[in-house]
Amino acid sequence: MSNAEEFRALHHGEKPLLLPNAWDFVSAAALVAHGFPAIATTSLGVAAAGGVPDGEGLARDETVALAHRLARLGCLFSLDIEAGFSADPAEVGDLAAELAGLGAAGINLEDGRPGGTLADPGRQAELIAAVRSRAPDLFVNARVDTYWLGEGDPGTTLTRAERYLAAGADGIFVPGVADERDIRVFVTEIPAPLNVLFLPGRHTAGRLAELGVRRVSTGSLLFRASVHAAVTAAAAFRDGAPVPADIPSYAEIQRLIGD
Amino acid sequence: MSNAEEFRALHHGEKPLLLPNAWDFVSAAALVAHGFPAIATTSLGVAAAGGVPDGEGLARDETVALAHRLARLGCLFSLDIEAGFSADPAEVGDLAAELAGLGAAGINLEDGRPGGTLADPGRQAELIAAVRSRAPDLFVNARVDTYWLGEGDPGTTLTRAERYLAAGADGIFVPGVADERDIRVFVTEIPAPLNVLFLPGRHTAGRLAELGVRRVSTGSLLFRASVHAAVTAAAAFRDGAPVPADIPSYAEIQRLIGD
Repeated sequence: MSNAEEFRALHHGEKPLLLPNAWDFVSAAALVAHGFPAIATTSLGVAAAGGVPDGEGLARDETVALAHRLARLGCLFSLDIEAGFSADPAEVGDLAAELAGLGAAGINLEDGRPGGTLADPGRQAELIAAVRSRAPDLFVNARVDTYWLGEGDPGTTLTRAERYLAAGADGIFVPGVADERDIRVFVTEIPAPLNVLFLPGRHTAGRLAELGVRRVSTGSLLFRASVHAAVTAAAAFRDGAPVPADIPSYAEIQRLIGD
Repeated sequence: MSNAEEFRALHHGEKPLLLPNAWDFVSAAALVAHGFPAIATTSLGVAAAGGVPDGEGLARDETVALAHRLARLGCLFSLDIEAGFSADPAEVGDLAAELAGLGAAGINLEDGRPGGTLADPGRQAELIAAVRSRAPDLFVNARVDTYWLGEGDPGTTLTRAERYLAAGADGIFVPGVADERDIRVFVTEIPAPLNVLFLPGRHTAGRLAELGVRRVSTGSLLFRASVHAAVTAAAAFRDGAPVPADIPSYAEIQRLIGD
């Protein structure tokens, strides 16, 4: 099986795919070492690590560089490419082909746009069709940002999902949806694997599985937890407070990198 | 004052310089936002994020890319350049000049070598002299790896420190030293600011200040804490355990980047 086929199959297993999101080589390596069968990326993490804001289409180079590194790691990986880093279907198709050529198993493509607006669904469908055409094997997870950017409603979301699936998407990602009734509607009405963003305190992976969600991702959660841990440890250092004792050693990190 | 002058002055203040080590833009931005007056980098973090082992001289490109990003952040920063990424003094001097040109206030240059050996001190002094010559203003922190790589002793360490200061180093960094008697010897005998690596459970920043240490750095500690937090949150997600509730929001991270 190709990487994409193997990744696609994970959406149809007995349990849903629990997909953690990395942002650099070592976060991916650490997650692989913890037994996750595949890794996605968080565009917030990739952008912020590189010093550019997320969702503005500015982190194309950082995303391609990360793809090269994840290919070297040798895990199954799916890349968050924001809205494709271009409004031109040909350019987005080129990027998808490049990433598939590096061994990426999938991509996320969002219909949110800079400034918090939603793309015209017809234009978004053109991007998806271009990706499908240039990278036939890639798992294309079409993100519908109706809930992420505002007060999403099932009707608008389903209409977009339908268009994106018709354009060739493999799965639908509705980040931000929390209400179980809405999730049930999507599971029932969308004829493709539904991906939901894990919202701590509102979801559990187990409950989302019961509802029929096929893929649960962490988005930027792990990345934000890591930033928090760094500044918390720095404050403890400065203030003379205890630093957590169970963090990995220098040698353990080096081993993750394969030294 | 230039960045380097301002950074140099921080080694001669009332209290020692508590210097946290970042590895990418966002970790540096978060530490600046937490009030640290200057930021150093951790070569382990920079190398691991890029997918190469630390201390092997493989992360030159990643280090230069980070310097560009920290320059954009606009903080005082000092870069860990491992052993200079070259054995050729001219190349190490070129790198120092490039980094100083980007606004770096200082560098760390180590006398450890791949495989855990120590450089010939005369050759290391040539690298330091080349840096001094090409980047006269830069704060050059000469790292003596006698304790880091083995059972360091004060005599060998002082001999190396003396040669590196004669070659133009501004400060001496002895990572791995824990014994207070040894630290006292270095404070007394080395006529330049002493930098010690903070070892949780063995040091406190306050006690190191009392001993006369002028700069205390966290090395890879914050980076390792961040990797740990990411995999801990991922495991909680997978296992249905609580995820820490006090991590920064998406919007807070975007604000750190200046969106």
